[in-house]
Amino acid sequence: MTRHYNFCAGPAALPTAVLERAREEMLDYQGRGLSVMEMSHRSDEYVAIAEKAEADLRELLNVPSNYRILFTQGGATQQFAAVPWNLLGPGGTANFIETGIWGKKAIQEARHLFGAAHVAASSAESGHVAVPRQQDIALSSDAAYLHFTPNETIGGLAFDYLPHTQREDGIEVPLVADLSSSILSAPLDVSRYGVIYAGAQKNIGPAGLVVVIVREDLLDRARDDMPTLFSYRQLAEAGSMINTPATYSWYLAGLVFDWLKNDVGGLDAMDAINQRKSDKLYAAIDGSALYSNPIAPINRSRMNVPFVLADSRLDSDFLVEAEQAGLLNLKGHRSVGGMRASIYNAVPEAAVDALVAFMNDFEQRRG
Amino acid sequence: MTRHYNFCAGPAALPTAVLERAREEMLDYQGRGLSVMEMSHRSDEYVAIAEKAEADLRELLNVPSNYRILFTQGGATQQFAAVPWNLLGPGGTANFIETGIWGKKAIQEARHLFGAAHVAASSAESGHVAVPRQQDIALSSDAAYLHFTPNETIGGLAFDYLPHTQREDGIEVPLVADLSSSILSAPLDVSRYGVIYAGAQKNIGPAGLVVVIVREDLLDRARDDMPTLFSYRQLAEAGSMINTPATYSWYLAGLVFDWLKNDVGGLDAMDAINQRKSDKLYAAIDGSALYSNPIAPINRSRMNVPFVLADSRLDSDFLVEAEQAGLLNLKGHRSVGGMRASIYNAVPEAAVDALVAFMNDFEQRRG
Repeated sequence: MTRHYNFCAGPAALPTAVLERAREEMLDYQGRGLSVMEMSHRSDEYVAIAEKAEADLRELLNVPSNYRILFTQGGATQQFAAVPWNLLGPGGTANFIETGIWGKKAIQEARHLFGAAHVAASSAESGHVAVPRQQDIALSSDAAYLHFTPNETIGGLAFDYLPHTQREDGIEVPLVADLSSSILSAPLDVSRYGVIYAGAQKNIGPAGLVVVIVREDLLDRARDDMPTLFSYRQLAEAGSMINTPATYSWYLAGLVFDWLKNDVGGLDAMDAINQRKSDKLYAAIDGSALYSNPIAPINRSRMNVPFVLADSRLDSDFLVEAEQAGLLNLKGHRSVGGMRASIYNAVPEAAVDALVAFMNDFEQRRG
Repeated sequence: MTRHYNFCAGPAALPTAVLERAREEMLDYQGRGLSVMEMSHRSDEYVAIAEKAEADLRELLNVPSNYRILFTQGGATQQFAAVPWNLLGPGGTANFIETGIWGKKAIQEARHLFGAAHVAASSAESGHVAVPRQQDIALSSDAAYLHFTPNETIGGLAFDYLPHTQREDGIEVPLVADLSSSILSAPLDVSRYGVIYAGAQKNIGPAGLVVVIVREDLLDRARDDMPTLFSYRQLAEAGSMINTPATYSWYLAGLVFDWLKNDVGGLDAMDAINQRKSDKLYAAIDGSALYSNPIAPINRSRMNVPFVLADSRLDSDFLVEAEQAGLLNLKGHRSVGGMRASIYNAVPEAAVDALVAFMNDFEQRRG
């Protein structure tokens, strides 16, 4: 068996220890005589798995007791629709800070479904190399909430601060964050958010699962005319089991939470590792004449590190040789080209060391 | 390692051979150095997995070339909303045949979202022990489609015929089927349907995945105001990859399709096995003084066999002893009580033999 270093942006690398445990339990979960995949979601053993996962996530993120954690489906893209349905209420407008492709998609879906979406700030004019500052954020007078993308997976642009959300009339509206590509990479002050959501396929588990964390007082805001499965209130009341949830993905997410708690030692420890990993990679890029990253240093993502080669004719050789060296999935997103190294929690520091060594070697030979 | 016989209604038993192969490939898919869970959904190796799954399903069900196969999320419950959004068009009304709890939920969701749903026929008055006959089905004059549930998982009630869908004005409307609990149990004439959908967690794979088979000419009927991920047209255009699909579940479904083709020998062979299994179980019930099943023989489900004990005070002993004998998940649905043996494709004939032997023995000792 071979395990290569996998820099995929998502579905992304999972901890080897998690996959080993899943393999061990695949046909017979702890002597019960069946796979987790084959369990009724309402059985005692499965409910215990689901509840442990939720409790571990709550502990890891220090989620306050007035927040509910939901495990649902459809990726962040489904939440682009679910958030306005749950939070708009009558007469409000969804507000957005646009810092890249995923934020833009969230705006488009809100506009498509509800006719209006207000872009309170955007980094588009700068080419998304630095996030808007607080003073540049202009909420609409009827803002119902402010949505932003703390870490843009494709552009590699990350917020260095948490936006304030006070409208001109003094009302503070909920802050909503698509944390798909940075959740669990560092501690988080959940109490500052109204809604957090995250597609699982970067730092949580397999694709198809989405985690939503919602402040309890927001559960009753929803419009009536929404698909039942989109309703945060109904999901919360049903313990995320309005219908059969993605049981196996939820179980795997639980194994990742357990790994973060017990193998890594929690989010402070994870944060320190992620800092070292990204510091090393950006240092290698900045110290090179061949590689470059355009993002303002203060807004550089610790999870997704895009970079280009000074001579794009070297791109395909770089990718072929990297793969031969066991460094997978370094190709940049099809919309932007170049390279991207996604260095999520499950990508070990040794992978970054190997990547940096390869980059240096490639530059010496070909740069 | 122990593998018990699992009669769960869903998430249900999977073929042991499929789980063994998934275990084998869990950390390193065919020497690529990563798990299928860790692959980009747009990578060559994952696209090959996804396309093979689709091709095998198309071959198994003999799906005509003017039908598209979609792999999406949210369970059948999400399709209760997606179907009307895709098929209602302007001014039409969704029509339903109600034969149990799942059909009723589909009616409720259409009514909730679109204000109206017409029950063209119902077996409710009879207590859902026989399906309505063709002459009892009264479509509304503005019927946009007719939805039915060929196999009701909870009641164990199955259609013995395919309803005709001609309105009074002569127009034939699309037939829509929730085939969650019977798809792939026997050959199917797909050309008779407009839309087929099925949650994966019975005969296809793990919970969270839904397969939709839709006739191409229906792709353009949809209303504009729907969540992007609900759109059959957009899913079809994007090869089910508008966003990241449930990649690992899709892969597992592919392993199940491969097992059906190559281990079982196709749906005719599967059908013969399923006939034998259900014939044996119903014969045991009918030949007993302790057990009974209320469904009209012609409408008895071959997948879900509910039965009650003449003395319900024996229920808990029956369940405890069954579990001790390695026969899991025989408890009936919480809404109806009694027992239910779900004998999907992955439940081997030996499991039914063991169940029948246990039932006979229990009756002799306790009946």
